[in-house]
Amino acid sequence: MHETVRIGIVGYGNIGRAVDASIEENRDMTLAGIFSRREPSAVTPRSVSTPIWHTDDAKKHVSDIDVAILCGGSATDLPEQGPFFVSLFNTVDSYDTHAKIPDYFEVVDGAARTAGKTAVISTGWDPGLFSLMRVLEEAILPSGEGYTFWGPGVSQGHSDAIRRIEGVADARQYTIPIEEAVNRVRGGEQPTFTTREKHLRDCYVVAENSADTDRIASEITNMPHYFSDYDTQVTFISAEEMAEKHGRMPHGGFVMRTGTTDNTDKHVVEFGLKLESNPGFTASVLVAYARAAYRLAKEGVTGAKTVFDIAPAYLSLRSAADLRKTQL
Amino acid sequence: MHETVRIGIVGYGNIGRAVDASIEENRDMTLAGIFSRREPSAVTPRSVSTPIWHTDDAKKHVSDIDVAILCGGSATDLPEQGPFFVSLFNTVDSYDTHAKIPDYFEVVDGAARTAGKTAVISTGWDPGLFSLMRVLEEAILPSGEGYTFWGPGVSQGHSDAIRRIEGVADARQYTIPIEEAVNRVRGGEQPTFTTREKHLRDCYVVAENSADTDRIASEITNMPHYFSDYDTQVTFISAEEMAEKHGRMPHGGFVMRTGTTDNTDKHVVEFGLKLESNPGFTASVLVAYARAAYRLAKEGVTGAKTVFDIAPAYLSLRSAADLRKTQL
Repeated sequence: MHETVRIGIVGYGNIGRAVDASIEENRDMTLAGIFSRREPSAVTPRSVSTPIWHTDDAKKHVSDIDVAILCGGSATDLPEQGPFFVSLFNTVDSYDTHAKIPDYFEVVDGAARTAGKTAVISTGWDPGLFSLMRVLEEAILPSGEGYTFWGPGVSQGHSDAIRRIEGVADARQYTIPIEEAVNRVRGGEQPTFTTREKHLRDCYVVAENSADTDRIASEITNMPHYFSDYDTQVTFISAEEMAEKHGRMPHGGFVMRTGTTDNTDKHVVEFGLKLESNPGFTASVLVAYARAAYRLAKEGVTGAKTVFDIAPAYLSLRSAADLRKTQL
Repeated sequence: MHETVRIGIVGYGNIGRAVDASIEENRDMTLAGIFSRREPSAVTPRSVSTPIWHTDDAKKHVSDIDVAILCGGSATDLPEQGPFFVSLFNTVDSYDTHAKIPDYFEVVDGAARTAGKTAVISTGWDPGLFSLMRVLEEAILPSGEGYTFWGPGVSQGHSDAIRRIEGVADARQYTIPIEEAVNRVRGGEQPTFTTREKHLRDCYVVAENSADTDRIASEITNMPHYFSDYDTQVTFISAEEMAEKHGRMPHGGFVMRTGTTDNTDKHVVEFGLKLESNPGFTASVLVAYARAAYRLAKEGVTGAKTVFDIAPAYLSLRSAADLRKTQL
């Protein structure tokens, strides 16, 4: 018999909804309730019997929840929710503002230690599984070169950047790894790529009536940081075509490393993901790490942890003996 | 400044020799000495200054070594050397007799706890990294199906089985994953394969003069367990061609899992290795886990551990802060 891990979902957007679905596929988990800042009637969980609580009432539910999965965004939600929720619950989040991760770690780590709780921060697939693979591959092939390619998939950040351009009604940006680059690494080369050589940016834009599409296209392709360093394709489509063909959120990518042993023998290590739903898979990872957070907390481990700090066995439903017998 | 981890190599065959090379690529490691049952003059390490000690003198070197990497075979060497060496040193080994791993774990775990040492058992790439990936992939996509494909690469066990046939002077067996099967999984299907549908066995045989090659071929293809369940190709070649074209030990394979989230969205996770030298890469993994064994021992963790019990950070030369800053 497994104990049941009682999960609280904080924020019921794409990720929160996907966590709800993922909990159903993990027989040691149950959804205890959803925290939201919206009116309870505006939140529609998969099961009508799931309690909806206001975020401000979190303190009232400390005994109802083992792990809170924070499903808000990194820009404004998590910097506030991370330290707050870990003062009450063990937490898992997908904080992904790379440059600010060290600061976020410190703040959450401090709050978690004060409260005697465990926080798994910055998990998902990147940061998360891809980070784990970068470290594993580097440790095992120190004489080598590592590469991360993203896509093909929708980049929310780049899509949003296009939507902010005047005259744009809607936009979807696909990040596409350049096959020739991937294949060179796969072949054991250790090339140095420019930004442009690794990824292509493929944009589908719905322009507002009478908007100047030439200007929009030029503003996109010249946008610093987001597009100007890449080969960028811009295609204008109708709102109907957008709804019909670009409603999904696929993603994926590769973490590769090529290196040598004994200065002569080449090796290629590759980890790849092909995901039909980015939020669906991200939620699956969050839920597996919620199991780890629960177990670490039971062992008395407190503070903020990342994928680097967590042994694989903590993620698995199988017992240690079963893992050795069937999976080794 | 890193502390230097002093490694002892136990057994200087293919793997031992490759560990010697791998230590040179890890700047926190040094080779303290080699234990061998052979005459010291019969062991030729990469550096002439490396001490060669007799295995029987192991006890004399308890203060010279932090971690002993056991490079012997699983059939007869490790069952004896595993418990013996862990009574003196922290150890790492690549014990790979799958059916006996639970027993081996118990014996080594007991000896390690008694001695207050740490043993990392059954690491390398399979068992080892592939085991880790099977567990990670299953934990993250519980509603799915996992597949391991091996090759293309030389199987030592199958090559040896052919060599035991009367009239065979030499043999090399390549295990080849069947591309159609790999591609079906890669496409997101969850097929049930027969043994024959997953791997092909490709054999190169040097027959002794006047040996009956038809009989040899028939004995190979009908050999139970090793070949009879597979499509097996047998090609007779000269000793010269064997030496020229089949002297290397490439290997590799894939650990794949396809699954769904929300019952609808398909995901494919794939971990692949393409290795020019099986012993070279295996040694690289052993050395990375020697770093982990050293650190676990310093933390006071004793007993036998597997890849499932070890957090990725223990394998990396980078500090925890550096990992979070640069790899997350």
